[in-house]
Amino acid sequence: MTLFSDIDVKYMRQALSLARRGLGLVAPNPAVGCILVQGTTIVGRGNTKPGGRPHAETVALDQAGSAAKGSTAYVTLEPCSHTGQTGPCAQALVAAGVERVVVAVGDPDPRVNGRGIDMLKAAGIQVDVGLLAKEARDINLGFMLAKEANRPSYTLKMATSMDGRIATKTGDSKWITGAKARNMGHALRANHDAILIGIRTALKDDPDLSCRLPGLSGRSPVRIVLDSKLRLSTDSKLVSSAQTVPVWVLTSANVGSDHATALISHGVRLISIEDTRDIVAVSACLADNGLTRVLLEGGGQIHASFMNAGFVDRIEHFIAPKILGGDGIAAIAGFDLTVLETAPHYNLITKMPIGMDLLASYVKSE
Amino acid sequence: MTLFSDIDVKYMRQALSLARRGLGLVAPNPAVGCILVQGTTIVGRGNTKPGGRPHAETVALDQAGSAAKGSTAYVTLEPCSHTGQTGPCAQALVAAGVERVVVAVGDPDPRVNGRGIDMLKAAGIQVDVGLLAKEARDINLGFMLAKEANRPSYTLKMATSMDGRIATKTGDSKWITGAKARNMGHALRANHDAILIGIRTALKDDPDLSCRLPGLSGRSPVRIVLDSKLRLSTDSKLVSSAQTVPVWVLTSANVGSDHATALISHGVRLISIEDTRDIVAVSACLADNGLTRVLLEGGGQIHASFMNAGFVDRIEHFIAPKILGGDGIAAIAGFDLTVLETAPHYNLITKMPIGMDLLASYVKSE
Repeated sequence: MTLFSDIDVKYMRQALSLARRGLGLVAPNPAVGCILVQGTTIVGRGNTKPGGRPHAETVALDQAGSAAKGSTAYVTLEPCSHTGQTGPCAQALVAAGVERVVVAVGDPDPRVNGRGIDMLKAAGIQVDVGLLAKEARDINLGFMLAKEANRPSYTLKMATSMDGRIATKTGDSKWITGAKARNMGHALRANHDAILIGIRTALKDDPDLSCRLPGLSGRSPVRIVLDSKLRLSTDSKLVSSAQTVPVWVLTSANVGSDHATALISHGVRLISIEDTRDIVAVSACLADNGLTRVLLEGGGQIHASFMNAGFVDRIEHFIAPKILGGDGIAAIAGFDLTVLETAPHYNLITKMPIGMDLLASYVKSE
Repeated sequence: MTLFSDIDVKYMRQALSLARRGLGLVAPNPAVGCILVQGTTIVGRGNTKPGGRPHAETVALDQAGSAAKGSTAYVTLEPCSHTGQTGPCAQALVAAGVERVVVAVGDPDPRVNGRGIDMLKAAGIQVDVGLLAKEARDINLGFMLAKEANRPSYTLKMATSMDGRIATKTGDSKWITGAKARNMGHALRANHDAILIGIRTALKDDPDLSCRLPGLSGRSPVRIVLDSKLRLSTDSKLVSSAQTVPVWVLTSANVGSDHATALISHGVRLISIEDTRDIVAVSACLADNGLTRVLLEGGGQIHASFMNAGFVDRIEHFIAPKILGGDGIAAIAGFDLTVLETAPHYNLITKMPIGMDLLASYVKSE
């Protein structure tokens, strides 16, 4: 076990902050951050650019130029060892004369998986692995799970009353939370690759699921509807805007029907899947299509299905200071849980007031 | 409008802290704090003692002795003007030669209601009223409501999953929250005069509702069961311990029956009430019996009834980092809410992690 200094921790934290910038923009690639330090001076900073190229290391090395020689590189993910659209980053670090590389976490991509570290070591570079590994894994959880489990990571967004309701018994749901919390919900969309909803929510609420924040409107993720019988209307806000922001519909219906053809002509991408209730199959399909971070936005049945599959990795819970009562509509439908001990369990990571509401953020407990 | 100095605010805050010590111990009296300041020195501190006597002012004046002459008194509630078990506090402040009295909030007790302040002013004392009035009213909300609306204040204690459930569909409820949150729940009991539950909760959980914290075991409040048909068992933990900690049963059943006699012989106090579902009548009965602060501890039907009556003044929400699903048992039963705008609305006042759980505290929005 290598001992890392406080200085190492400081720089790696900065690299992690850089990495986060790429979330929602780089799939199917990981969001990486890299800091190059010469003595006590940062000579290069980089993060994975939108679309996944160039890589963080390349950006930082370009910035550092000749100052990279003899520097220490802090990288949030093992540098790649394979030649893709560009040469391997490990090779670039070697070529630049970097003296030490601190890596937060290894890259599970079968094309890398230790080879990046080996390549550096073979060139005589000191490589220290494992600094803030948990944080680094958490940032790229979607990428990690895509490689390890053929599924994206899922974030469940819940906006509920104190007693866990998303609407009154008659369906009145606008708005449970205040404007600030709703804006925060839009910001959440921007750092995900896709938003997923069920057809019932699509039909009931006719949402557009865009990111309507100033400066972030270009960052609306793919909008996905699980729609077994292909009931999504061509008049829906989703379909009407499908030419601008992608809409994918996963369906087990006939994709050769007139309605299917109409949807396609509006720019909707239809993806056939045997059973839209099969969350493992749905997830594999999303990962195969390059998604790493998916935001679940309702309704209760969809939430329950993903919860039951054990696939909800993170929960962003906006709690409105209201009580709606037990005849209101539940945020999460039943999934037949009987024994408390087996309930899906999370760790509270942050809590903060957002206007009148409270946002509690959770990650799945191991 | 009098302008208060920062120094005034500082001392009144200390007086409010003293006042809080009496909560759960002084009903039907208010919990008052008093600080006597001579120049820049605190010469006396007092708070209402258990049972309600002596009053805070008397305690502080006793402590100050002759140093009270020429001092400023900070009192969280208007000094009393009536002769009860002791002489009026306003008179005692006059007799001690206090020069100025700062009062947080007036006393709505019809025997006082401004007369305490008048008595001080008549003696030539400078009286400044209204410093931290909202905080002071909040501390003594139960006392205020007893005088103003013939009901105690109610605190709803909810310990739920993130999705607002208190048990799985099969009733498994031990434990939703962790040990630290449960201890905190016991501490909450200690600053209330009584805990109220419904008969269904009594039958299902057989709780003892005591305060099981080291040092606080002597502070277990009155335990109240709403039990229309008098179904509470003589074998229950509540009844078994009724000789030690009071148990009151509000019932509309015949209190001359054998079962009623048995309960009484175990030390239970039976109180007849026409309809235990009539929350206004129940509340008047509790206020008439000297209670000012009542903690609601289940079940969902009871919570819904008090919520629907608009009587839930405060909510202490322990949120466990778990999801139970929509077939779990709701913390609050339905109360026929249809329009979101009319939902009971609260203000979040504090939030803090308690072990693995999150405690969010709310007061009713005006």
